[in-house]
Amino acid sequence: MFVAQPIEWTDKGVVMLDQRRLPTEEISYTYTDYREVAQAIREMVIRGAPAIGVAAAMGAALGLLHSTASSIDALQSEFPEICDTLAKTRPTAVDLFWALERMKRRFAELCATSKSLSEIKRAMVEEAKLVHLEKKATDQAIGEYGAQFMPAQGQVMTQCNAGALATGGIGTALGVIRVAYQQGKKLHVLVPETRPYLQGSRLTAWELHKGGIPLTLITDNMVGHFLKTGKVGAVVTGADRIAANGDTANKIGTYQIAVLAKENNVPFYIAAPVSTFDLSIPDGDHIPIEERSAAEVTHLQGLRIAPDVHAAHPAFDVTPSRYIVAIFTERGVARAPYTTALRDLAAAPQPVVASA
Amino acid sequence: MFVAQPIEWTDKGVVMLDQRRLPTEEISYTYTDYREVAQAIREMVIRGAPAIGVAAAMGAALGLLHSTASSIDALQSEFPEICDTLAKTRPTAVDLFWALERMKRRFAELCATSKSLSEIKRAMVEEAKLVHLEKKATDQAIGEYGAQFMPAQGQVMTQCNAGALATGGIGTALGVIRVAYQQGKKLHVLVPETRPYLQGSRLTAWELHKGGIPLTLITDNMVGHFLKTGKVGAVVTGADRIAANGDTANKIGTYQIAVLAKENNVPFYIAAPVSTFDLSIPDGDHIPIEERSAAEVTHLQGLRIAPDVHAAHPAFDVTPSRYIVAIFTERGVARAPYTTALRDLAAAPQPVVASA
Repeated sequence: MFVAQPIEWTDKGVVMLDQRRLPTEEISYTYTDYREVAQAIREMVIRGAPAIGVAAAMGAALGLLHSTASSIDALQSEFPEICDTLAKTRPTAVDLFWALERMKRRFAELCATSKSLSEIKRAMVEEAKLVHLEKKATDQAIGEYGAQFMPAQGQVMTQCNAGALATGGIGTALGVIRVAYQQGKKLHVLVPETRPYLQGSRLTAWELHKGGIPLTLITDNMVGHFLKTGKVGAVVTGADRIAANGDTANKIGTYQIAVLAKENNVPFYIAAPVSTFDLSIPDGDHIPIEERSAAEVTHLQGLRIAPDVHAAHPAFDVTPSRYIVAIFTERGVARAPYTTALRDLAAAPQPVVASA
Repeated sequence: MFVAQPIEWTDKGVVMLDQRRLPTEEISYTYTDYREVAQAIREMVIRGAPAIGVAAAMGAALGLLHSTASSIDALQSEFPEICDTLAKTRPTAVDLFWALERMKRRFAELCATSKSLSEIKRAMVEEAKLVHLEKKATDQAIGEYGAQFMPAQGQVMTQCNAGALATGGIGTALGVIRVAYQQGKKLHVLVPETRPYLQGSRLTAWELHKGGIPLTLITDNMVGHFLKTGKVGAVVTGADRIAANGDTANKIGTYQIAVLAKENNVPFYIAAPVSTFDLSIPDGDHIPIEERSAAEVTHLQGLRIAPDVHAAHPAFDVTPSRYIVAIFTERGVARAPYTTALRDLAAAPQPVVASA
């Protein structure tokens, strides 16, 4: 089955699919310079926190691979500049910093123990590929835990794009749907378009369509109508941040879908890696909501669609955990009471991934 | 305060504002031929059931006014063709047929009692203007009944466009907001853009902005977030059809706003004329939902915004009456139990309007 490849390490360089041009054009670029990778992250050729982490790791490896440094010392003096350039692209994407820290740690280990420049370069490329493999394994595990909660047949709903394009694996929420579908469950996916950026119509509809999974695209104000009348068996979305009590920040619109699901007795689930947990905050009131440009509401692809009025653009909202029936992670399934369930999963071992 | 004039009878002809081009262009046409009025209705220069009714009445008067018939008999033989042309424009708009029936009835009366062609023509123009005046009086009465339920200050939310553009008066839901604002209530209106047609951003935001009433435009998936966090004092929307038990069909998205309002203890109101009641059906399950073109979801102003996938486009949804705190009409306010309240209002006398 088709799985979108937002990013791939190849012998020719880092290949990236330009997500800004989907669904009308499928254009990929091959980068051989880490500065190109940094620019691609900044300009949103690639998006989705896990996918950005993979891009940063590959960018760091690319910078080392093509370095002309003639000694390990010289390579060591170049690496901070490479990492800084990659770090300055999307200041709020946690996975980006996590990936760069990991690459720095591995680089320090290798410099302390390796015999040659080529050995270090080769091992750093392997590390970047391992970061990618781990994302894939995480998605697969989330998908398998979640798939059992999907109905044997009928409609399921998602929100935004928590698919392969966002993670570099099979996706989180879409990974759950994909695994269930591959297990033989006859699912039909209701895809809200997810204004203002249209990640639902542009990305999720495209992924499902290419993967041969049946779908119906709807506007965001049809969600309630379909939950009331459409015999929907489950809703599953991704998450950007999950507080200690299970309150979950995700793309704007998720909260209202969760309320409408509960009102209509449709189970609402979150699919997200353990790295999304933020156990340092007690509840959703402590999650800041990013306010983005109002022009993204009043304009669409450069076209003015509203008069010159005040518009709001909170990019995320918070779904209180009382609306969430379960949270699927790569380490298992959390259910209420979430405070203990999330703490237990955070302390559980991460599934081991074979080296690339 | 500015009130949009979607249609006006003038000495030069019927003047219509082209609502298709709002908010970027404010263009009016002056029609002197009833066939132009029919075309304008069909092509949606004007929309909104009450406004379409006014247009049909004015079109009928225009057809008679410019007739070259030299006798009452000749005029009588021309009128059915005029009415038929106007009737064949929007087959489902109830107000259109109601307005034409009224014009036919008045014409028959006048032909039976009048002395001259010019007397009949003048009286038919007066009848069309009276239809318009009655719409204005109905809106004003709805606005005054509803305004007392608006908070003294703070945010209120609406949906779609139930404004002056839709009725030819001050609007129903927007009429309530307008009267409350003029009474000194410090309101700030949250306007959902109302995909796929964007009546919220294109029409409601335009009307409020021109009228100097503060507003914030939001996308339809922000509704829940703002009801949860935005200190909203009331929600008021229009209605397309109200069943005997108070279940209300209105623009898609209304149902989910009502559920989210109740969940967050925000009162949800309907503002609509008694002509919207359909007491022949017991509840909302008997209201058919019009399914419109999927291309309206996958394209925006001719621009493709989704891949070539299946899309749904129910144009309306049904809000069960248990979510509706009150229904404002021109004859008073209905509250639960709606079955008796609506029956009483339907039997109450219509407010009398002075002749034009």
